[in-house]
Amino acid sequence: MTLWRWAECTRDELKAVLPDGIVVLPIGATEQHGPHLATGTDALLSGTVAERAALASSASSARDLVLAPCLAFGASDHHLSFGGTLSLGAETMTAVLTDLGRSIVEDGGRRLVIVNGHGGNRGVCHAAAAALSARHGLVVAIVHYWELLSAPGDGTPVPGHAGEFETAMVLAVRPELVRERGRRPAVPPESTVEGVDLHDAGAWRRIDGYTDEPERANETRGKAWLEECVTELTGRLVELGSAL
Amino acid sequence: MTLWRWAECTRDELKAVLPDGIVVLPIGATEQHGPHLATGTDALLSGTVAERAALASSASSARDLVLAPCLAFGASDHHLSFGGTLSLGAETMTAVLTDLGRSIVEDGGRRLVIVNGHGGNRGVCHAAAAALSARHGLVVAIVHYWELLSAPGDGTPVPGHAGEFETAMVLAVRPELVRERGRRPAVPPESTVEGVDLHDAGAWRRIDGYTDEPERANETRGKAWLEECVTELTGRLVELGSAL
Amino acid sequence: MTLWRWAECTRDELKAVLPDGIVVLPIGATEQHGPHLATGTDALLSGTVAERAALASSASSARDLVLAPCLAFGASDHHLSFGGTLSLGAETMTAVLTDLGRSIVEDGGRRLVIVNGHGGNRGVCHAAAAALSARHGLVVAIVHYWELLSAPGDGTPVPGHAGEFETAMVLAVRPELVRERGRRPAVPPESTVEGVDLHDAGAWRRIDGYTDEPERANETRGKAWLEECVTELTGRLVELGSAL
Amino acid sequence: MTLWRWAECTRDELKAVLPDGIVVLPIGATEQHGPHLATGTDALLSGTVAERAALASSASSARDLVLAPCLAFGASDHHLSFGGTLSLGAETMTAVLTDLGRSIVEDGGRRLVIVNGHGGNRGVCHAAAAALSARHGLVVAIVHYWELLSAPGDGTPVPGHAGEFETAMVLAVRPELVRERGRRPAVPPESTVEGVDLHDAGAWRRIDGYTDEPERANETRGKAWLEECVTELTGRLVELGSAL
Amino acid sequence: MTLWRWAECTRDELKAVLPDGIVVLPIGATEQHGPHLATGTDALLSGTVAERAALASSASSARDLVLAPCLAFGASDHHLSFGGTLSLGAETMTAVLTDLGRSIVEDGGRRLVIVNGHGGNRGVCHAAAAALSARHGLVVAIVHYWELLSAPGDGTPVPGHAGEFETAMVLAVRPELVRERGRRPAVPPESTVEGVDLHDAGAWRRIDGYTDEPERANETRGKAWLEECVTELTGRLVELGSAL
Amino acid sequence: MTLWRWAECTRDELKAVLPDGIVVLPIGATEQHGPHLATGTDALLSGTVAERAALASSASSARDLVLAPCLAFGASDHHLSFGGTLSLGAETMTAVLTDLGRSIVEDGGRRLVIVNGHGGNRGVCHAAAAALSARHGLVVAIVHYWELLSAPGDGTPVPGHAGEFETAMVLAVRPELVRERGRRPAVPPESTVEGVDLHDAGAWRRIDGYTDEPERANETRGKAWLEECVTELTGRLVELGSAL
Repeated sequence: MTLWRWAECTRDELKAVLPDGIVVLPIGATEQHGPHLATGTDALLSGTVAERAALASSASSARDLVLAPCLAFGASDHHLSFGGTLSLGAETMTAVLTDLGRSIVEDGGRRLVIVNGHGGNRGVCHAAAAALSARHGLVVAIVHYWELLSAPGDGTPVPGHAGEFETAMVLAVRPELVRERGRRPAVPPESTVEGVDLHDAGAWRRIDGYTDEPERANETRGKAWLEECVTELTGRLVELGSAL
Repeated sequence: MTLWRWAECTRDELKAVLPDGIVVLPIGATEQHGPHLATGTDALLSGTVAERAALASSASSARDLVLAPCLAFGASDHHLSFGGTLSLGAETMTAVLTDLGRSIVEDGGRRLVIVNGHGGNRGVCHAAAAALSARHGLVVAIVHYWELLSAPGDGTPVPGHAGEFETAMVLAVRPELVRERGRRPAVPPESTVEGVDLHDAGAWRRIDGYTDEPERANETRGKAWLEECVTELTGRLVELGSAL
Repeated sequence: MTLWRWAECTRDELKAVLPDGIVVLPIGATEQHGPHLATGTDALLSGTVAERAALASSASSARDLVLAPCLAFGASDHHLSFGGTLSLGAETMTAVLTDLGRSIVEDGGRRLVIVNGHGGNRGVCHAAAAALSARHGLVVAIVHYWELLSAPGDGTPVPGHAGEFETAMVLAVRPELVRERGRRPAVPPESTVEGVDLHDAGAWRRIDGYTDEPERANETRGKAWLEECVTELTGRLVELGSAL
Repeated sequence: MTLWRWAECTRDELKAVLPDGIVVLPIGATEQHGPHLATGTDALLSGTVAERAALASSASSARDLVLAPCLAFGASDHHLSFGGTLSLGAETMTAVLTDLGRSIVEDGGRRLVIVNGHGGNRGVCHAAAAALSARHGLVVAIVHYWELLSAPGDGTPVPGHAGEFETAMVLAVRPELVRERGRRPAVPPESTVEGVDLHDAGAWRRIDGYTDEPERANETRGKAWLEECVTELTGRLVELGSAL
Repeated sequence: MTLWRWAECTRDELKAVLPDGIVVLPIGATEQHGPHLATGTDALLSGTVAERAALASSASSARDLVLAPCLAFGASDHHLSFGGTLSLGAETMTAVLTDLGRSIVEDGGRRLVIVNGHGGNRGVCHAAAAALSARHGLVVAIVHYWELLSAPGDGTPVPGHAGEFETAMVLAVRPELVRERGRRPAVPPESTVEGVDLHDAGAWRRIDGYTDEPERANETRGKAWLEECVTELTGRLVELGSAL
Repeated sequence: MTLWRWAECTRDELKAVLPDGIVVLPIGATEQHGPHLATGTDALLSGTVAERAALASSASSARDLVLAPCLAFGASDHHLSFGGTLSLGAETMTAVLTDLGRSIVEDGGRRLVIVNGHGGNRGVCHAAAAALSARHGLVVAIVHYWELLSAPGDGTPVPGHAGEFETAMVLAVRPELVRERGRRPAVPPESTVEGVDLHDAGAWRRIDGYTDEPERANETRGKAWLEECVTELTGRLVELGSAL
């Protein structure tokens, strides 16, 4: 089928496509990514992966795809103290996603795929999706794009935050957004407990706001990761075209 | 150290314990669990697992544990259409968790472990934890108790909803809450796409509100699962006592 | 008729009972009760009175009764500064009661009796009940359980807060939750003006968070009060079974 | 001391008076009052009683009084279906009172007396007062003006709604706002249960939106009631001037 | 046609008039107006202009007019630091207007004219009107009364805040609400950029909370301005009676 | 000085620039623009004008400029019924702007210029700016970009909605987003009353969702208008660099 870009379509084109199509909404964040990486990283990466995958899958998908504008802001209150962060509170971000989903339903749409690029959006995506499905009958699929990757053999954290993985991905997409990377100073080891989701604003401070060594990142690996993300999401979108 | 039950303590006992202790808050739901299982299942199971693990871990934990009253209501709007459901909307449930966390901070506490028993609470737990950590400096850990289990060898969905797993667990804890189970009628296979989190209220109706065969459940397996959940959570609480 | 416990019933049992039945929802608080009384007092007492009365009245009631899980948290912001308090803000507590009532209506129910055990919940009960009745057609009855008592001859404040009355009631129900009570230090007389409802957080501090002498409390009087509360509420529930 | 009318004072006058003074805020409603009585009744009556009492008490009060503008709108969702009603939802009305109280604190004030003229405002007054006292340290007193009356010997409901009492009061204040009153048609007896606060929107419809016989009302009795309300509130304001 | 005052009408009179009539709602503020002017200025002026114009236009209007009670409180957070201000937050004020508009629709009304007397209410008027029109089909017209005036030849700011214009208007309506006016001390010139709407709380402090010279105000000019406002609004109401 | 693009900067670059710089935030909408124009028109135009003006003014501005990512969604509930619209409710949009402004303050910023491209955002811009200024001390300037134009001599409505002006502007920026334009069918003349801001969802339907003749639009005129908008905004940004 076809890829439509919402913002470039007229209302009548969208009215024709939405009832049987799938809306793809990339969301990210604008927040501190250490001293070396641009604050727009998350929106850049989810937007890039979503766009490429939507384009790649449209030919073989059983449904038309409609790519909505990327939402560049996310739930980033935990990064505010570092500077450079534009955050929507959890309540506001939930309301934004709920309002956008409700709009899609009023416009005739029935299926939404959120392609998320920011770990801090996990909760609000889930909460909004549950509300939209229960209240408006919208079918909502959530993909955190990095979860489609196979685990790196050398233990690199994926996605981490502003560490090797994200730095490499940005090197692959827009290398000019990566600043010179010195050697990361030693930081106390992060507390993790398996199977437990930890929220600790203080921990972010102790590691200076990024999780692992950006200096290890290189463009080659970034391109491979990017390729894999796009390929995997492409496959998922095709599957969703049949499943939903 | 010691296990304290919040509701049974005086303010002065809590003032002494909270600054260095860990609050454990079990949360569940009161919602339809098919024609055969009690609506209070999720609160019963998270409450039971949390209490037993808190008790078991208190001796070897490096911190006192304070067990808060179980919150019996959760974000269950997607089950309202089946009857028997007492739901808090996603926005309300987020506010409840946020207010409780804020209270803990005003009371002198610094660490909260939410033991969750309801899949529908995932998003609101995460959203509230992020807000509490960023706004009030509370360290929040979230455990969805079933995620601590090793995967069953025969592919039984864990936790599913009101299927073999939960039915077996209730048989292990309060068997009188399981009604006679006929053979589950054939249902259309559930749509799933790997790595994608799907929210589809219509899908719940197509499978009559429960995911797999409750008639396969037996008490023996339930007791083993329960035991494993308690043991694993006990270990996590001990780890958290050192890590936080 | 019959007493059903919501959390122990299946959805189908509740679907059958709710249209002609009455839901009884006990609500309390988890908040400081002086240096001598457990923080769970209010939930314990409203839960106990509600459960006993529901059981006692079910035989003679013209309608089935459905006992919902006790909500252990209430609007207790005015007790936060003392420690030991888990409070829902007034706005959140109103939303919780409104969401629960709306759920009952979606589940097929038409009648709700809130049995309240915490003075600070008065306003939110009333506000939520008015909203539920107007917006969803739910009939809501509110009982503050202590208001059913005849006035004690010796002027003991009922319920007061953590004074003789509540201490005696806890002695009657779970005496181990009452700590040793020294003699209450003299406190400045409370400002009261007849017919005026006074809200003064500072006044709570001046009286150290409890209103009168817990050392006067004894189990005998507590049992008599408890009995009277249960008997009176039993009668009210029977009356409501005919009136609603 | 002196009576100041907030709206007629300058900021500097108010800055001088508020720290030691008492703010008196009359609130009412604009809602259906049967076929015979003006919709502005509640605001008219609370405004009149508050103003007269504030004036009468100012001479002997130990504190200056500051009369705020009457809030003519209240929580009247339960009267919307009759027409003629301008209602604020319970959540909005709570926010209004909370914002006004917060303003008073920022302006230097410490004491607020709400003189309420509408039964439907009970809950929101209480909820907002609790929040203001706990969050901002404002001392809030609530008076429902009719509760200061001694019970009429003949059982006339006070205040009822748009029945004999309110009709007589309006006859005493602005008789042109009472339309011709035919004989009230027989209505089914109202369900009441002693000690239980019942919220039933359907009950309002069964009695056509007013509680008892307006045709019994006369100006003489209205003037006596009005006089008693003013006298009693005057006394309370004097008492509050000493107590707060 | 006829002018009806909402608060003085019965529900049945309003039910008859609202479907074809126009509701006129004056809104103002209660906020600091410098050292010389009463805090109730904005509500006084919008209420006065609205009432006189409604009366004047009713004879020639093609529709009945229904004058709602004046809302004396507005969005004045930016004046709180000066004292004497009773403010509703922007969110609360939006909710108030939305609830009042929704009530009008439930009462059978279809047309609302908001006559606004406070610059700080611009945004909330517009936001609420957009919501009411889209959600409830209410037609909402907003008039900021001073915008109907022709520009004064001598550059007097209209309306300014508590400067010559408003002071003159109050001199025309209730001269006793204007205190003695000394010579305004020199203030730094206000930053303005043409076509740009500037919000700067600090700027209010730099000019001591009022914009221009109240000592220039006189009653004669005030009466002329008032007359022009009333005449212009009268004309607009007549036009709206035909246009809506 | 320099133009910085927020999303392309690191946190440390932003920390250095924000205290003395000015943040420029373009906002638009994604909503129906008739049968002929892309739904992304408003965001495209405000984004384009803001970016070009920010670039042009940076050299001569006394302050650094920081261009935030364009917010592509706005308050468009009134366009939902036409299809193709992604709307944030007025309350949500107010919260988004308030959260973004609060973030800027926490990041060290003090000055924000909102460049708005959608008439429906007027109210929420104003409401959020007032709140941000009063609560957080942020100086907020709002520019509706089309208001900087001199009035066209031939009476073309500016901006109208999806009529000649916006169509011409899109022809100038991205002509492929304009579909074939037939002759606009005759529509009833729009009701307007001078000096009155009318909100009427029904009126939008009567004119099929656009205000005037798109077929009159041509690229030449669009380029001239665009140029003038950019030039004027450039001047305003320079002025603001000195004034704020």
